[in-house]
Amino acid sequence: MDLYEAVYRRRDVRAEFSGAPLPDGALERVLNAANAAPSVGMSQPWDFIVVSDSDLKRRFHTHVDEERREYASQLDAEQREKFQRIKIDGILESTLSVVVTYNADRGGPNVLGRHAIADAGLYSVCLAIENLWLAATAEELGMGWVSFYREHFLSQLLGIPDGIRPIAWLCLGPVTRLQETPDLERHRWRKRRPLEDSLHRNGW
Amino acid sequence: MDLYEAVYRRRDVRAEFSGAPLPDGALERVLNAANAAPSVGMSQPWDFIVVSDSDLKRRFHTHVDEERREYASQLDAEQREKFQRIKIDGILESTLSVVVTYNADRGGPNVLGRHAIADAGLYSVCLAIENLWLAATAEELGMGWVSFYREHFLSQLLGIPDGIRPIAWLCLGPVTRLQETPDLERHRWRKRRPLEDSLHRNGW
Repeated sequence: MDLYEAVYRRRDVRAEFSGAPLPDGALERVLNAANAAPSVGMSQPWDFIVVSDSDLKRRFHTHVDEERREYASQLDAEQREKFQRIKIDGILESTLSVVVTYNADRGGPNVLGRHAIADAGLYSVCLAIENLWLAATAEELGMGWVSFYREHFLSQLLGIPDGIRPIAWLCLGPVTRLQETPDLERHRWRKRRPLEDSLHRNGW
Repeated sequence: MDLYEAVYRRRDVRAEFSGAPLPDGALERVLNAANAAPSVGMSQPWDFIVVSDSDLKRRFHTHVDEERREYASQLDAEQREKFQRIKIDGILESTLSVVVTYNADRGGPNVLGRHAIADAGLYSVCLAIENLWLAATAEELGMGWVSFYREHFLSQLLGIPDGIRPIAWLCLGPVTRLQETPDLERHRWRKRRPLEDSLHRNGW
């Protein structure tokens, strides 16, 4: 798939996962694309935990559901009503999930390009996640980033060691279709912001 | 360009910028690709400052050079010798730069998906940067992320308001070629880590 086609077809998928098995080799291809992402000082500070165990998925989903209620309780009545109609995860329906973590110690103690910006390693992990997302799109798979969770819960659930930080829970798998309009826009949560509104020249 | 081709051809460019003008429409295409990235709660918390002014570039370069010396002073003799051979930026040689910033207040106060993970907005900005990088590769441009700087210096230089955080200085422009092997591997700073070393199943 053409790069620009992948960029514009990519969606944050919740409702369209079919649960079908992934085509042969697709998981390896998307993870290799993630592993080929740029990283500060070539530290590649990411790890990938593939979660296919249904008990783990169920326990994570229960936690996400609690966090969903927690968030809803912070909204005013109008926002809450809109929010209740929005599906926020496809944990149980998607074929598998990939948890991506950050290891700040990899490549240390003097990671080239990180002495002045401590978060640069964190940024690298996100670049890998976007590679994974676009590769999934090119493979005609859906991917959905779930962020309704507490990091310490996820660390305990998967036995992630101290010092390694979970960055994302990504639902992944075949889909019945990809929506043309993002869910949050279809549900009138927010409209997409045009580029011109974010563009500055030679200063803010 | 095919998505996977862009993923594997992409390089973090320092030495190969030609300084030639960008082809018509290329800057708009790569910035629109960035603006089409996923973001938590569809907050699109990024801004893009295009820097073409040569005085601004020169002042930033002077600062980066100071930070380069600061980093070198932290290395042992063997590392320092390797590091001295590595070019860390193409600020003066590249046609222009794009500074990407993060606005935590956009879409607030209740950004959907950010109540439990404060950094989720920061992650979104990085996804946009990777879209920009891959689009630049597909346009046969080079891009290089410079991270030898202090955020407050860059904020002052470009008049970035309080509460907006600079995330990246990206050099961008036509190149004479893209290296096949990353600079840091060619200079024996680090080797690329194979995917298998970062892969776990159903737990760490």
